[in-house]
Amino acid sequence: MPDVAKDAPLAERLIAGDKRALARAITLIESDDPAGWELVREVYPRTGKARIIGFTGPPGVGKSTLIGALVGEVRKADREVAVLSIDPSSPFTRGALLGDRIRLSEHFLDPGVFIRSMASRGALGGLSEAALQVALVMDAAGKDDVLIETVGVGQAEIDIVDHADTIILALMPGSGDSIQALKAGVMEIPDIIVVNKADHPMTDTMVREVRSVLALSHEPGNWKVPILRTEAVRGEGVDALAEKIGEHRAFIEEAGTLAERRARNLRSEVVGIATSRMRRRLEAWAAEDAGTAELLERVVRREVDPATAAGQLLERHSDA
Amino acid sequence: MPDVAKDAPLAERLIAGDKRALARAITLIESDDPAGWELVREVYPRTGKARIIGFTGPPGVGKSTLIGALVGEVRKADREVAVLSIDPSSPFTRGALLGDRIRLSEHFLDPGVFIRSMASRGALGGLSEAALQVALVMDAAGKDDVLIETVGVGQAEIDIVDHADTIILALMPGSGDSIQALKAGVMEIPDIIVVNKADHPMTDTMVREVRSVLALSHEPGNWKVPILRTEAVRGEGVDALAEKIGEHRAFIEEAGTLAERRARNLRSEVVGIATSRMRRRLEAWAAEDAGTAELLERVVRREVDPATAAGQLLERHSDA
Repeated sequence: MPDVAKDAPLAERLIAGDKRALARAITLIESDDPAGWELVREVYPRTGKARIIGFTGPPGVGKSTLIGALVGEVRKADREVAVLSIDPSSPFTRGALLGDRIRLSEHFLDPGVFIRSMASRGALGGLSEAALQVALVMDAAGKDDVLIETVGVGQAEIDIVDHADTIILALMPGSGDSIQALKAGVMEIPDIIVVNKADHPMTDTMVREVRSVLALSHEPGNWKVPILRTEAVRGEGVDALAEKIGEHRAFIEEAGTLAERRARNLRSEVVGIATSRMRRRLEAWAAEDAGTAELLERVVRREVDPATAAGQLLERHSDA
Repeated sequence: MPDVAKDAPLAERLIAGDKRALARAITLIESDDPAGWELVREVYPRTGKARIIGFTGPPGVGKSTLIGALVGEVRKADREVAVLSIDPSSPFTRGALLGDRIRLSEHFLDPGVFIRSMASRGALGGLSEAALQVALVMDAAGKDDVLIETVGVGQAEIDIVDHADTIILALMPGSGDSIQALKAGVMEIPDIIVVNKADHPMTDTMVREVRSVLALSHEPGNWKVPILRTEAVRGEGVDALAEKIGEHRAFIEEAGTLAERRARNLRSEVVGIATSRMRRRLEAWAAEDAGTAELLERVVRREVDPATAAGQLLERHSDA
């Protein structure tokens, strides 16, 4: 870590790789503090170097254990790693998640590893944007790999990891719903599929099913989505996963799709942030405006239909 | 059907229960035609009578078959039914879905049944709103029951059926991901859970798992979510489902939660439509505006960060 005074500006300490500066930066972003946005603005020119790797998949497949093992693997190559876990919204899961987090605890004392959770509750509509802002400060802090983990099985969860350069879907034997969702095209095909808990007797069946789904969508010349088997608790197969992440990265760099993907993600990010802000402004204004409450009451009384009310809401707002 | 001239206004024919008028109304809504919004405005005071029932669940569990059987069941009580199926977005699923639709075909000739599919492709961000508009015209057309079906396993899919008075989650033995999602609180608890394909040997295990998840979230005095077993292909258990839908309806009417739920849904609907419109206006404007293209290029070159660009986009837009 370069020599930076403790009282240096936050951006400077962040770029120097100061762990507490990074933690502070994320707190600012998470609490939607203007200083957080300002910080990202300052450090943005220093970003773009890290590999952004997104993990998604249903709860219970052992994603945190897998990420814990992967962190160990990339540390062998002396790469610095940051992990961002997006927690689901319900309160009664905290226990289970904390249990999961323990899998990552062996890395807590390693100065080359930074781990942070972010709750989705409260960040209505803007979680995906906040996640990217956090990935940017992790990147600016000099991390070589930024791993973003989200728990879920729908399109909304895929959207969160959509900013990643490489998207990994983790499944386990018994993930029938996810296979069906891939098959039906409800869920987009990721870059790498991992079947964890591979010592389960149903693994072969599972891998065969996944393969038959992938066969439907593969186009010649495109990246061929690999199906890996891991037993993350014992670290088995994780070296192969680390290798495949590297191969995918090399493939999209050569094919020029990394630059394309990042440009597309950044553009949709800008529109996404703008929309979130507009929505928040509108909601804040509507909550204050007495006429809006009356308008909504009339909708409930079936006097004004929702679309007409929406139009009137927008008119009142632009006049305000 | 009351006597209405064929050349009477669309709203009049719709309210009289004319099937072709209903089909036309839905096409107008689906294609975002102003006449569709106008029609909903006209008929809105006639809505609020139908039971709106939402079905969600992973693909492959036999939701369409289940709905087909349920339609037969409610028809026995001489209730008029409309079914709206929201199709997933990928093109290579059409075959599978058409196959599913055939399950509903026995009702095609029944004048008391109206069936319609709506594709999610193209209706970016506004599908949930369009689905409610369609439910409203079905309601205005005098249908006693409106069934809305969506395919998926994430929060986005639940959002679509969130306008319903009663939400049904359909699972099958092997729906491990959905159980995990319920357990982790990633997916909200529905009003009724159906385990279809109940002749499967794993059904008992499945029902036990679901029951243990529900036990965590049940609060005394609230509706106790029933777990039903069906074998929709043979129509088994579907009478019990029809009965439970009636019981849930009676429960929320007595507890006053039906009115509460509808008021909340309608309010969020108004804000949802307003936001969708703002987003569309912003996107249309940004696509035309030369300065926006240059701004997005600067983001890609890491000269301007996404949040600052979003702010500049909003400023340019409000000045335009």
